[in-house]
Amino acid sequence: LRKFKDRKHHILSSTEVAETRYSSVKIEMISTGEEVLSGQIVDTNASWFADTLMNQGLELQRRSTVGDRLQDLIEIFRERSQVADVILVNGGLGPTSDDLCVEAVAVAAGVELQEDSGWRAHLEKWFANRKRPMPSNNLKQCLLPTSAILVDNPIGSAPGLRIKINGCWLFFTPGVPSEYKRMVEEQFFPFLRQEFQLGESTTLHKFLTLGHGESALAETLQDVELAPGMTMGYRPSIPIVEIKVFARGDSAIAALPKTLSEIRARIGQAIVSERYSSVAQEVHHLLLSEQRTISLAESCTGGMISAQLIEFAGSSAYMHQGIVCYSNEAKTQLLGVSAATLKTYGAVSPETALEMAKGARSLQNSDFALSVTGIAGPDGSTENRPIGTVSMALATADYSWVQTVQLGSRTRTLIRQLTAAVALDMIRRHLCGLSVLADYPFIDASFQAEYPEN
Amino acid sequence: LRKFKDRKHHILSSTEVAETRYSSVKIEMISTGEEVLSGQIVDTNASWFADTLMNQGLELQRRSTVGDRLQDLIEIFRERSQVADVILVNGGLGPTSDDLCVEAVAVAAGVELQEDSGWRAHLEKWFANRKRPMPSNNLKQCLLPTSAILVDNPIGSAPGLRIKINGCWLFFTPGVPSEYKRMVEEQFFPFLRQEFQLGESTTLHKFLTLGHGESALAETLQDVELAPGMTMGYRPSIPIVEIKVFARGDSAIAALPKTLSEIRARIGQAIVSERYSSVAQEVHHLLLSEQRTISLAESCTGGMISAQLIEFAGSSAYMHQGIVCYSNEAKTQLLGVSAATLKTYGAVSPETALEMAKGARSLQNSDFALSVTGIAGPDGSTENRPIGTVSMALATADYSWVQTVQLGSRTRTLIRQLTAAVALDMIRRHLCGLSVLADYPFIDASFQAEYPEN
Repeated sequence: LRKFKDRKHHILSSTEVAETRYSSVKIEMISTGEEVLSGQIVDTNASWFADTLMNQGLELQRRSTVGDRLQDLIEIFRERSQVADVILVNGGLGPTSDDLCVEAVAVAAGVELQEDSGWRAHLEKWFANRKRPMPSNNLKQCLLPTSAILVDNPIGSAPGLRIKINGCWLFFTPGVPSEYKRMVEEQFFPFLRQEFQLGESTTLHKFLTLGHGESALAETLQDVELAPGMTMGYRPSIPIVEIKVFARGDSAIAALPKTLSEIRARIGQAIVSERYSSVAQEVHHLLLSEQRTISLAESCTGGMISAQLIEFAGSSAYMHQGIVCYSNEAKTQLLGVSAATLKTYGAVSPETALEMAKGARSLQNSDFALSVTGIAGPDGSTENRPIGTVSMALATADYSWVQTVQLGSRTRTLIRQLTAAVALDMIRRHLCGLSVLADYPFIDASFQAEYPEN
Repeated sequence: LRKFKDRKHHILSSTEVAETRYSSVKIEMISTGEEVLSGQIVDTNASWFADTLMNQGLELQRRSTVGDRLQDLIEIFRERSQVADVILVNGGLGPTSDDLCVEAVAVAAGVELQEDSGWRAHLEKWFANRKRPMPSNNLKQCLLPTSAILVDNPIGSAPGLRIKINGCWLFFTPGVPSEYKRMVEEQFFPFLRQEFQLGESTTLHKFLTLGHGESALAETLQDVELAPGMTMGYRPSIPIVEIKVFARGDSAIAALPKTLSEIRARIGQAIVSERYSSVAQEVHHLLLSEQRTISLAESCTGGMISAQLIEFAGSSAYMHQGIVCYSNEAKTQLLGVSAATLKTYGAVSPETALEMAKGARSLQNSDFALSVTGIAGPDGSTENRPIGTVSMALATADYSWVQTVQLGSRTRTLIRQLTAAVALDMIRRHLCGLSVLADYPFIDASFQAEYPEN
């Protein structure tokens, strides 16, 4: 239940592809550190690695997490090196007494530690440049097992290293995410490609979709022909499903444009971005490039839409203002929603949403104004307006569009996230020359209307 | 580096405590499923389990993640059962063809599968009640290894099960988080306590702190006397550090109030909640219980403070409005900030923050108004106002408070999160009868002032 309905469409789409998967390379990962093991921090380094592997058409076979105990580390290095071809190890390279990976791997390999004079000179120079004495703790970071090869860390004090045990390469990386990611991208992957002859060039294309179910997308794309060397994967991240198309090798890369066109032809309506990872980011860039301005009037989302846009630097160029009008008074006073409309139709109604958007737009004569008003629950529902009922409107100088969607009995957070995405998509569609009011298979619109501005 | 600076203060604080840690019980976890292994979803079930274990003073020894391949599952069950005393297995109990945990564990145990007639009757009744035929796929969920014991799932179709292999109990749970968590809490932990005589009662107390570094807190609390059976742990979650005090057994529980008082006496100024998991949640409940109203005027946070409060149901009782006033025009037009103030002092200044708060409060005569205006970066800094300069004000009918803090060269997201927490803490402190303007060791306030309202 927790997994995809039909895995073969997600991870692999055809038998031809399987041949290109280098399944002979058994890749594992070992995460070390008490705070990861105890759940005190979420191991985003691990999910990033698995995802990055997948982006290159490679697969992780197993991931293990252990704490900082020396014996546990020695044991897991010995054990997994008997199974895997290459293991990425993360964490445990720092200067403190509980950073034990180097010591442990030396024991596991049956070799001594010795100082790497080059790294010591590098560290001493680093501290000298900053006019600070090098703490004696850092000397520890100059020690390497005699059979290990140092891996440069251009931005930190802990060097990486790789060492072969039981015929398996263990590749050690620091836990600091910025150092870790740079080392994996600049050194681990080139090493992997060279060592295991994964030398072909690769490319990855992503489609961000909104309002379509993952299974439905997979079914629609099921018989898209993938050339040898191509894989297609799905990554759901509510309220978005990302589709990744990966190509390895010149012939697959050459065939990619045709495949992407085929995908666009089949699910074009679902695609909200081919460049960015959220609807807000796409809208941010569209507003910037089109030099348009926007105002927001948010009730149930409570400022979330504003905050999502202002997350991106440069948003001051287009953001006039956002009004979080949770109360009827705020709707009337700040946005000029008429008391009669609120009384006759209610705060959650297309009529109120429309007046909110028009009122927000007129404050500074913005090019666009977006409004949302809805019932995010768990309280506040009525017979006619169940939880998840959300009205939203887009106003421009010439036209207004309004719709009421039924987002169902989801959690308060999910209803608000989905509302933000669907509302932002109204602007995106307008800026892209599409009809503002979309028909999303997964989102039930109970009312949709378009009005010329008078 | 990825780990705590000084682990012994975090996980355990004294040698006495170690004796109560039941280190003789070796607990492991195995997460199954391609989507977890490939990083397509973050394994929050795993971090929840480790955290829940820690809350009971227990420790995880290793966590492993494998995909859905039958052979990988068989191998890991055989292998880890030779080491651990008890293993929580998650996922792979669904009705589809890639749910292979039951089949795999039967092979690992060397026993056959047989139908559990009780569960079959239960499932058939479940479907009959919904007037739907039972899909044949679900028959698979009635099969158990002959030596296994069924574990009830009161809210799903997949039963849990436990089975002993190599002297180790494997306890299988479904991947659906709601089913999983209920099964772990209601069945796994009682089983664990009974099987391993962990029968004593336990209790956990949490302190949420703001503006103090984790290492500094640990140092201040270093020699707090912990009775046998007590542990203290730290969980940093920017911008918050949570301190957990755990007590096992009647004498430890009896000694707890004294220890908590000692902690309050030492770090009382740092504590922002002993009930909730965010400053926003604490402020939400304080505003509700004190029946006060609030308006917000946000520039650099862009609606984040409003959105954090509106995350909680019932916020409509106190939330008058939020104004996201990113432009100078919005500050003037909606909040009545004078053009002279903006020109003389700039948009990021105590003077502007003060006028923003007063303007927001006067719209509906709210009890409180909170304003923030700052430079979140990466652009917009000046010589006098580096990135991370944020001015914020709290206005009431009688007094106003304003401060400018220097949040340093952090990321845009972090500056905004820290700003929201510090601004909300001004209201919290006021509602708790503390001085509104705090002295946080980790946050440099370059200006603080209090004005009587005229």
